[in-house]
Amino acid sequence: MSLSLPDALPGDPRFFHREGPLTVGALAECAEAEIVGQEGAGEIVLRGVAPLQAATPQEISFLDNRRYLPLLAETRAGAVILGPAFKDKLPEGVVGLVSKSPYLAWARIAARFHPVSPARPGIHPMALVDETAVIGEGVEIGAFVTIGAHAKIGAHTVLAPHAAIGEGVILGTHNRIGTHVSVSHAILGDRVTLYPGARIGQDGFGFAVGPAGFETVPQLGRVVLGHDVEIGANSTIDRGSMRDTLIGAGTRIDNLVQIGHNAQLGRCCIVVSQAGISGSTELGDFVTIAAQAGLIGHIKIGEKARIGAQCGVMSDVEAGADVIGSPAMPFREFFRNVAFLRRLAKKDGKAEG
Amino acid sequence: MSLSLPDALPGDPRFFHREGPLTVGALAECAEAEIVGQEGAGEIVLRGVAPLQAATPQEISFLDNRRYLPLLAETRAGAVILGPAFKDKLPEGVVGLVSKSPYLAWARIAARFHPVSPARPGIHPMALVDETAVIGEGVEIGAFVTIGAHAKIGAHTVLAPHAAIGEGVILGTHNRIGTHVSVSHAILGDRVTLYPGARIGQDGFGFAVGPAGFETVPQLGRVVLGHDVEIGANSTIDRGSMRDTLIGAGTRIDNLVQIGHNAQLGRCCIVVSQAGISGSTELGDFVTIAAQAGLIGHIKIGEKARIGAQCGVMSDVEAGADVIGSPAMPFREFFRNVAFLRRLAKKDGKAEG
Amino acid sequence: MSLSLPDALPGDPRFFHREGPLTVGALAECAEAEIVGQEGAGEIVLRGVAPLQAATPQEISFLDNRRYLPLLAETRAGAVILGPAFKDKLPEGVVGLVSKSPYLAWARIAARFHPVSPARPGIHPMALVDETAVIGEGVEIGAFVTIGAHAKIGAHTVLAPHAAIGEGVILGTHNRIGTHVSVSHAILGDRVTLYPGARIGQDGFGFAVGPAGFETVPQLGRVVLGHDVEIGANSTIDRGSMRDTLIGAGTRIDNLVQIGHNAQLGRCCIVVSQAGISGSTELGDFVTIAAQAGLIGHIKIGEKARIGAQCGVMSDVEAGADVIGSPAMPFREFFRNVAFLRRLAKKDGKAEG
Repeated sequence: MSLSLPDALPGDPRFFHREGPLTVGALAECAEAEIVGQEGAGEIVLRGVAPLQAATPQEISFLDNRRYLPLLAETRAGAVILGPAFKDKLPEGVVGLVSKSPYLAWARIAARFHPVSPARPGIHPMALVDETAVIGEGVEIGAFVTIGAHAKIGAHTVLAPHAAIGEGVILGTHNRIGTHVSVSHAILGDRVTLYPGARIGQDGFGFAVGPAGFETVPQLGRVVLGHDVEIGANSTIDRGSMRDTLIGAGTRIDNLVQIGHNAQLGRCCIVVSQAGISGSTELGDFVTIAAQAGLIGHIKIGEKARIGAQCGVMSDVEAGADVIGSPAMPFREFFRNVAFLRRLAKKDGKAEG
Repeated sequence: MSLSLPDALPGDPRFFHREGPLTVGALAECAEAEIVGQEGAGEIVLRGVAPLQAATPQEISFLDNRRYLPLLAETRAGAVILGPAFKDKLPEGVVGLVSKSPYLAWARIAARFHPVSPARPGIHPMALVDETAVIGEGVEIGAFVTIGAHAKIGAHTVLAPHAAIGEGVILGTHNRIGTHVSVSHAILGDRVTLYPGARIGQDGFGFAVGPAGFETVPQLGRVVLGHDVEIGANSTIDRGSMRDTLIGAGTRIDNLVQIGHNAQLGRCCIVVSQAGISGSTELGDFVTIAAQAGLIGHIKIGEKARIGAQCGVMSDVEAGADVIGSPAMPFREFFRNVAFLRRLAKKDGKAEG
Repeated sequence: MSLSLPDALPGDPRFFHREGPLTVGALAECAEAEIVGQEGAGEIVLRGVAPLQAATPQEISFLDNRRYLPLLAETRAGAVILGPAFKDKLPEGVVGLVSKSPYLAWARIAARFHPVSPARPGIHPMALVDETAVIGEGVEIGAFVTIGAHAKIGAHTVLAPHAAIGEGVILGTHNRIGTHVSVSHAILGDRVTLYPGARIGQDGFGFAVGPAGFETVPQLGRVVLGHDVEIGANSTIDRGSMRDTLIGAGTRIDNLVQIGHNAQLGRCCIVVSQAGISGSTELGDFVTIAAQAGLIGHIKIGEKARIGAQCGVMSDVEAGADVIGSPAMPFREFFRNVAFLRRLAKKDGKAEG
């Protein structure tokens, strides 16, 4: 890059608030990690987080993959979060924060240094809030936000500039609604995050064939998002036609995902970018849908099933199953077929050649 | 869901206007359906629509799939719309509205109870309408809408908040332009609906390789949307480079669909979510493109052809053909290949095992 | 189409500014092309560009594909841009502009007639620019634009209505930021173009599994876009988690593309619509990713590699390789496998039939 960049460590102060300094002891406590190091290691003061190769003695770093052990050996970090299996590999003088869930420990420590900014309560003078809307305590409403009649905004929710909240919509507490988001015909739980450009509650794709062309079937359901749901940038969640489109508590949806009308997702599902779930399909809890996968309508995916990237799912999937391919089949079968066809076609090519 | 929800029948009054009550006779007339039931059944008064399992005697419900016959047997609905084949299955005391097109009848009856809200004519004081723009009678322009110089907005068109209409754009009558939609370099017919975040008329993806990198090829065409076209949320329709990008009358495009420059779609096509049509490709009338399918550029798809989900179309498709797979092949061939490979690979696995 | 359309030649004056008339000589000079024609041909005056079949003697047209030679024979165009191989085919009286890069010549001549509108410097009274933001010379800021604290906007940059620029963001000079674009946590080079609805800099998809559900991993990197980068409508570029998401100079990204956190794209890459690149994956220079392709995370794609449409890339790809299929394999192998399976399954079907 020929751009002249400011310092590229994580947490660029142009963009991120930073707390601290913090002691190793305080960090270990928030991460529920065990300190491994010289006496008094808990008193060491750290100023931020950084990758192994960039960290200085004032920063804490992180290892969760054997592949990066060479970087651990050479790191200058003051402390490193790692799993019990790697604690023998700590270089001399580097404090270990040992956790059985090192990635979770990392998440918490990084969030300790860089917490989400609290709401800045108040309604921007250039926002338009209908006089019948009910606005909770400590809500932040940005410039050019529109809030329709009879909408309710839960306490401590933040609406970024340009968000559009339709008539009657209910947002829970501590929601984060991104820039240019639109929400209509929807009821949201607490701590819901919508990233920029997400579209929640528009009409599903429903029409009947009439004598002069298609005729729209009214879409009379809603979207209900459970607590702690996240919806990625420019993703689209259509409202139900006769029942609600439901996204269970804790489910995380990435960018550019499509969820059709009446779909029902369980708790703590993961839907990766550009995947699509067609109308009336139901997912159990803890289902994972990888990127660009597509599910047809009116099927059921059992809990903890995992759908591979680009998978095309045309029928029910059992709980706990791992499927991939288009049409979907068990992982093992898919890769066996691929290898078999490759081998056979190669042999055939040679025989003819 | 741990959310405490209000009543979950379709048509939640928080979000939907409701007309009525209406007599069975009036509903039968609007749906062109035949009443089957006791004498005077046409005088029975109904208040809304509901699914078979939730309807009360004051609601009308709907059956179009043999699979739901058990629900019909137990329904408490006052009336049920259904096809002639099911009319013998009506429980005693439930009035039938029999139609050869039950889904269409349902669409019309649901729309009779919950009609689309009429435009609320007027220009919001926080909208910016260029003084050279021409605004038709009965137009509704929401907050923070921008309308560029010399644009024309047809009568009774509704622009939701935050819509951006570029210079010179022509919208027909009775359009519904959603929140955060942008339209430039485009001419729209009557009764066009654009859902939130749709992007109409931006530059196509065109560039030439120059000595110092890519150089943009000016995109000098337009987008033309025929009457009754619908474009889904966050879909993108690029304008043409040398000719126009055309979407024929009555065509319906779902969410997150990409239409490349110079593409030409016929009348009453259906393009399901996350499908993509590359530049200069042409579709006849009544073509269906299922979800996540992709069409390369410069090909022709004959009328009434059906392209399956996730299909990758690399060459012309004949009128009336059904194709699927990547590369596309006839439905029958695709599923034969899948079954054959599965069988062969399994046999091979056993032989080796 | 039953719409009554105005003249459908490229460059509709409703939407496009037009310069000229221009002489063949001036056009040849800007395109570095050789004039082939009668004496004094360089003095001929032209008024615009048009396709071969629509051009009049006052327009210049273009041929780069043998397939359109019949149109060349019948064209009424005043002049035609073409490659050396076709110059013998020019009809009598039609001037040739011969170039080894006819498409590039076309791009330049079309841009000479229809140059990008220059910025109209000034800040719209309905834009909100934080008082600590630094606005360069000649910048155009449209209605309802928001610019956050300490942001920097380079000279001659144009921000269309409704764009949202977050705190601390740095835009280079001569950027074109489309309608409803949002940018946060990002640093942009010069001459960057973002099309409507593009989302730059939101949180990547990162979370750890905690005892009560997923916990967000703070995303502490940025997005850095090199000079001359273009990002298509409604595409999403997540910011890095620990390092930056980097898009190299000159790279062009089409509509509805997803780029995950920490991804690194080289210079002059092409990423076609609806493709997705997962987190931490790295592309060398001049890589092409065709439409709807998907790359898993943490892999490396060598320079000048070409990834086919709908390809599913699960491992590293060598420089210069051509791959397609899901999972990805060399083009040749993919089509050999397809043909082989088709042949074998057909034979099997006959044997059984």
